[in-house]
Formats: sequence, structure tokens, C-alpha cells
Amino acid sequence: MTKIGILGGTGALGAALAGRLAKAGHEICIGSRDPAKADRVAREIAAASGGSISGAGLIETAEGNELLFITVPYAAHADTLSQVRDAVQGKIVVDATVPLQLPKVGTVQLPAAGCAALEAANILGPGVRLVSALQNIGAEKLASGQAIDADVFVAGDDAAAVEVVQELLSQLAIRSWHVGPLANSAAAEALTSVLIQLNRRYKLVQAGVRITGERKDAPR
Amino acid sequence: MTKIGILGGTGALGAALAGRLAKAGHEICIGSRDPAKADRVAREIAAASGGSISGAGLIETAEGNELLFITVPYAAHADTLSQVRDAVQGKIVVDATVPLQLPKVGTVQLPAAGCAALEAANILGPGVRLVSALQNIGAEKLASGQAIDADVFVAGDDAAAVEVVQELLSQLAIRSWHVGPLANSAAAEALTSVLIQLNRRYKLVQAGVRITGERKDAPR
Repeated sequence: MTKIGILGGTGALGAALAGRLAKAGHEICIGSRDPAKADRVAREIAAASGGSISGAGLIETAEGNELLFITVPYAAHADTLSQVRDAVQGKIVVDATVPLQLPKVGTVQLPAAGCAALEAANILGPGVRLVSALQNIGAEKLASGQAIDADVFVAGDDAAAVEVVQELLSQLAIRSWHVGPLANSAAAEALTSVLIQLNRRYKLVQAGVRITGERKDAPR
Repeated sequence: MTKIGILGGTGALGAALAGRLAKAGHEICIGSRDPAKADRVAREIAAASGGSISGAGLIETAEGNELLFITVPYAAHADTLSQVRDAVQGKIVVDATVPLQLPKVGTVQLPAAGCAALEAANILGPGVRLVSALQNIGAEKLASGQAIDADVFVAGDDAAAVEVVQELLSQLAIRSWHVGPLANSAAAEALTSVLIQLNRRYKLVQAGVRITGERKDAPR
């Protein structure tokens, strides 16, 4: 059981993640700029999932938990990270942010730093164990509790932190891959706009990706 | 039957593509900076595939064919496009270039323009019907002639040109998706470094991706 904070946990992805992690037995705190809203959403999710979920402000959530997810909209990304920077030093921070730019969310528009995860690294500094994950899983799918027919890319330079995150995801029945250094979060972030396009063009319900390819030692 | 030129057709991807397109009944010309090498490789592939394949220089290939693929290494990308710019005006050009930067080919390092396809658009100008495709299919897989357990992303702003390319790919038994505007080539280009990482880390034989997601009108 890990004490997990979800900064931006009142949003669709954050709330879905909170419910799924609580069901898996973790103690969850939802962090929001609006602590009253965080508390209300926490109670709703706790009622639905039966797990241990509380709500608090951003800094309080960052201070009181061992591992933090960031599930804020891109417009609030830099500001949220700046607020919690001191409180998350030494901790594992899992950034799920996709740099979607309104109104063209279906067009890849990565930031000058390369991707949102590298922007986060610049803000948080080298003392934070930063991992990028969960850019390509729809909130509905995650909230449904059903099996997820899509893989998650996990990018990060801290191999032990990546392993912790992959273990958490496997507890949620999500297959994940370590896709390389934090810079490779660019692939997952860009893919989100592609999936938005595919949902529209091909009328798919929450498109995702699966990795294919046989293992070299597999029998032929 | 289409007259197709492959600029960079002496490389692994270009040669594999030439063989597979020739088998599908198209008339192929391999274009290279070294016309003698192009001619030699063309004869080798023709012997193996039994199709109609010739070799020529870059500009001659660009001038003499209706549709062109670009399969050059990134280091030769801008120079090759500049050379053939005049010869390809009004034609469909399919860019398969991935901006891999040696030695870190497993790290996403997209160019400042956003992706190699947008760089190509800047060089070729608005008179070329530019499409991006085939960044994520291994040359070995393509050359094998076997079924390919991976999807191809096709990006482009000219819907009719995208449709022509998707039809060509379907003739090669390759499933493809129109993933949106040319800018979305960034996702496919970034994905290549991820697939390189996965081949290494998980010892996969030419990792690829498949799109998942039910159609909205599918029976539940």
C-alpha cells in the first residue's frame, strides 16, 4: 500500500486513476487548487470505489504523499509544478500531461523543450524522480474498471522509479513499456493528438495503441 | 500500375519497398546519388522479385515518375529534397524520413520545425502533394514479404493524396491510418526511437504498433 497523491485529481483522468488505485488498495489523496472541490470529488469516488480517498489542496497533497501523479490540463502544468516543487523533492512524480493546444487538440504541437515531461524536469530540478506515463489511456476507459486494450508508455531516466510506476500500472491491469529516457515522452504526448484524430475520423471509442513484435528468443 | 520512383532506393527500407511494390505490379525506378549503384541494386531486386525495376540518378528518377517515395537517411534529407524540388512539383511525394540523430537514435530529437515532414514541406513548397508514411515499419519485415503485424501512420493535408498512398499500402497488405495533418508526422517520427528502445530493452524483433479501439457503431 502506497500513499499516492493525484494533483489535478478532480479532472476526468485524475478521478478515474484515483478510483482504480484505491480499488487496488492504495491510500489516495486528491489534490486541487480548490480543496473543497477535492474533498467533494474524493467522497464521490470513495462512495463508488469503496477505497480510502481524501481531498486536499495542491501543496498539502504534495507534502503528505510519497508518490504523486500530475493530471492537470496543460494550461495549469507549469504553475502547478512550480507550486509543489519544494514539497516533491526526492519523491517519485508521474507526469501524465499532454501539451494539447486549444483549439487544435488533434494537431501535434510539442513545446520548444521537446515535450511537457522535459518542461516538468526543468521546473522540478534533478532532485525529483520524474517519470512520464498515461498520456494515451482515455479517462472513460480507466474509469470503467474494464480491461484496457491499450498499452502505456513509461518514459524516465530513473530506472528504479520507472519500475515502481510499472508495478503500480500492472496492479491496475495495464500493460506498460519502458520506452526510454524522459525525452521519449514526446512520442506518447504526440500520439495523443493522433488518437484524437482517429477517434474522429474512424469513429472509434477511445483509440489506443498496442506494441507488437516477437521476442528474439520466442520459438518460431 | 503506377510509375513510382524511390529516392534513396538503394538503402534497406527503399530496396524493400521497391521489391514489394514491384511484386504488386508497379513500375519502379530506384533513384540514388550514384546512378551506377542504383542500376546494380535495381537488377538485384528485379532478379529477386521478378518485377519491373530500373535505376537512375535522383533528378532523373524525380522527373520520370508520377509518385515518389523519399527513403534517405536524415543527414541527406534536406539536400535530396532541394535537388529534386523542381522535378516533383505537382506530384505526390511520400516522405518516410525519420530525424534520427546519431549516436542517440533511441532518443527522440525532433527538429525545431516540429518534424522532418514539416521540414520537407518548407523545402518543397505548397505545389507538392506531400504525404508522410512508413516511419515505423522495419526494412527486414517489409523485405520478408510476410504479413506485417504493425500499422502505418499516414499524415498529410491533401486528403486525395493520402488516399492514393493508403491504397498503395493496402496493395502491400499493410494496414494504415490517416492520422491527421502533416504536423502529426511528429508522432510517427518520435515513435521510431521508442521502437528502437523496445527492440533493445525487451529483445523484440522489429517492434511495431497496432491501433486499438472499437468502432462506435460496432455491436457491443
